[in-house]
Amino acid sequence: MACSTPNHTQVVSGWAAHDSSGVIKPYVFPRRENGVDDVTIKVLYCGICHTDLHFARNDWGITMYPVVPGHEITGVVTKVGANVTGFKVGDKVGVGCLAASCLSCEFCASGQENYCDQAQLTYNGVFWDGSFTYGGYSEMMVADHRYVVHIPDNLPMDSAAPLLCAGITVFSPLKDQGMVYTPGKKIGIVGLGGLGHVAVKFGKAFGHHVTIISTSPSKEKEAKERLGADHFIVSSNPDQMKSYRRKLDLIIDTVSAPHSLGPILELLNVNGTLVSVGAPDKPLELPSFPLIFGKRSVKGSIYGGMNEMQEMMDLCGKMNITCDVEVVRTDDINVAMERLARNDVRYRFVIDVAGNKSKL
Amino acid sequence: MACSTPNHTQVVSGWAAHDSSGVIKPYVFPRRENGVDDVTIKVLYCGICHTDLHFARNDWGITMYPVVPGHEITGVVTKVGANVTGFKVGDKVGVGCLAASCLSCEFCASGQENYCDQAQLTYNGVFWDGSFTYGGYSEMMVADHRYVVHIPDNLPMDSAAPLLCAGITVFSPLKDQGMVYTPGKKIGIVGLGGLGHVAVKFGKAFGHHVTIISTSPSKEKEAKERLGADHFIVSSNPDQMKSYRRKLDLIIDTVSAPHSLGPILELLNVNGTLVSVGAPDKPLELPSFPLIFGKRSVKGSIYGGMNEMQEMMDLCGKMNITCDVEVVRTDDINVAMERLARNDVRYRFVIDVAGNKSKL
Repeated sequence: MACSTPNHTQVVSGWAAHDSSGVIKPYVFPRRENGVDDVTIKVLYCGICHTDLHFARNDWGITMYPVVPGHEITGVVTKVGANVTGFKVGDKVGVGCLAASCLSCEFCASGQENYCDQAQLTYNGVFWDGSFTYGGYSEMMVADHRYVVHIPDNLPMDSAAPLLCAGITVFSPLKDQGMVYTPGKKIGIVGLGGLGHVAVKFGKAFGHHVTIISTSPSKEKEAKERLGADHFIVSSNPDQMKSYRRKLDLIIDTVSAPHSLGPILELLNVNGTLVSVGAPDKPLELPSFPLIFGKRSVKGSIYGGMNEMQEMMDLCGKMNITCDVEVVRTDDINVAMERLARNDVRYRFVIDVAGNKSKL
Repeated sequence: MACSTPNHTQVVSGWAAHDSSGVIKPYVFPRRENGVDDVTIKVLYCGICHTDLHFARNDWGITMYPVVPGHEITGVVTKVGANVTGFKVGDKVGVGCLAASCLSCEFCASGQENYCDQAQLTYNGVFWDGSFTYGGYSEMMVADHRYVVHIPDNLPMDSAAPLLCAGITVFSPLKDQGMVYTPGKKIGIVGLGGLGHVAVKFGKAFGHHVTIISTSPSKEKEAKERLGADHFIVSSNPDQMKSYRRKLDLIIDTVSAPHSLGPILELLNVNGTLVSVGAPDKPLELPSFPLIFGKRSVKGSIYGGMNEMQEMMDLCGKMNITCDVEVVRTDDINVAMERLARNDVRYRFVIDVAGNKSKL
């Protein structure tokens, strides 16, 4: 594996959680020098993903403190290594969930680095040199260019940031299920948060009939009028659920709280697939009958490979798809995280890391 | 829907459970006259499926007592209706899980009657005329010819019987996953009972590398020597499980007890599928991480359509595939069911309904 691991001599200001309280505080830490395969990035914006909350609070029991979260990062290239040909200083770029992978397995070779057995995350991962990775809640990043994408010029850097995780996480299963370039299917989106709202935008942009399945009746008006959803089902309403039995071809379930898949599976037609992307910290309940009597599938999916990440970004540029975001100052990260924990956000918080346009 | 519903004037001797004790007793009940689309069958053998136990004991809460179980039925045609062209008196035939379906939906039209929304089971179902269906624990059956298959002449009628449910239940997912006519894949079979042992036979006959995942180390020798399995993993042995991580292309999970799918999913390669056919009465536990980090699928499957049932029977005839059975007398159904409840059977009990060759 060709890789460079220069010394970690650069001092960077960032924001980290130090224990399972999840409270985020300013934190100064070292990053590696820009290696031959690296680009250095001045971070402009970083989305606050639900995963950041899970890691900050150690919900999955795997957090290595102090953790600098953030894997929805947009910024500008300030330095490029000798081996880097695809990027130059001044380029608008994005970094998502991946910091490294083995570069030699069948998955790395086929643009599925996200399924490489040695894939390492942008934060709470271990880089090739054994150092911990730190994410985008920081003023500067050093990233291997193989895990960096270009951001189309017409996309705002704040509302493009959540595409790097929320976006790719729902784009990848749509691609996997053949629904990016073939319109006319019936898609259900469970949960209308950071992931769900982008999934609705993608579903509509790619020509599908989109149904939202949500616990919140209050979201219906906005979902239809603002996001363009065709249909809205309140999941706690048995009549609404029953009326849509066997109607959907694909469901993308974005809910990160543990829940039963049974009632949702009933909405799928025979041979339909539910793709689970929410990563609840407790097992999902999978009753057998809705699964077997409908020959249905529950499939997993985790962010996406680098080729499809760039493909998604380019499509978003062409179709003008961005996320609906609330931009927050670095001083307000904890307030934003508290609100995120209560699902009180339309639809993604993005940290104004460089202090250009904070509103909160 | 073209169907005939003659009067239920034929008196039949059979065996039924009358309450949730699940105890099976002789039971005399009416069956319909042989209609224009029907064949009448003298029942020779009937397998005891785990489903029979579930229904007899009302494990799923949906039993309509008295229930005459049995959907692994072999016998000889004694009468044919005016519309029946595919069968004649004296033919060796089999009846599986299906008694009726709508005959007009997309699934009926495409040989997937088993996924018809109005499909009715061979027992504990409601026939077109509103009458309850009664299964193969009985001396005689009247069955619509569209749900009857031919049994190849070279197959013994006792050891062929379990193919009608156990067989088709594992054949159908192998067909669905493209593994009947394309050899060389790595298949895992979870649970070595009635379904599992046929799955091993199919897997080997179709040219695959077959691994058994079982809780019982004592089954290893027989599984390899008698059934031809290539590899055996004791599921409670973490080292054995870990050594086979990401090794399998397909897993067929036949276990009917509730269990976590997490450790089993880890055995699948990226994009691999676990097909669940065991129908546990409580939800399966589906942890998110093994699902999403491997882009894995959990798919359901319920018996099979009539075309693939005949296809399987013909293949079994050509390849001489039958089930390993213990033949029991009608007097010993309850003993057999008790033993089945303890998984004490190699590998399927078959009732000698006509009293030809009982051993127990």
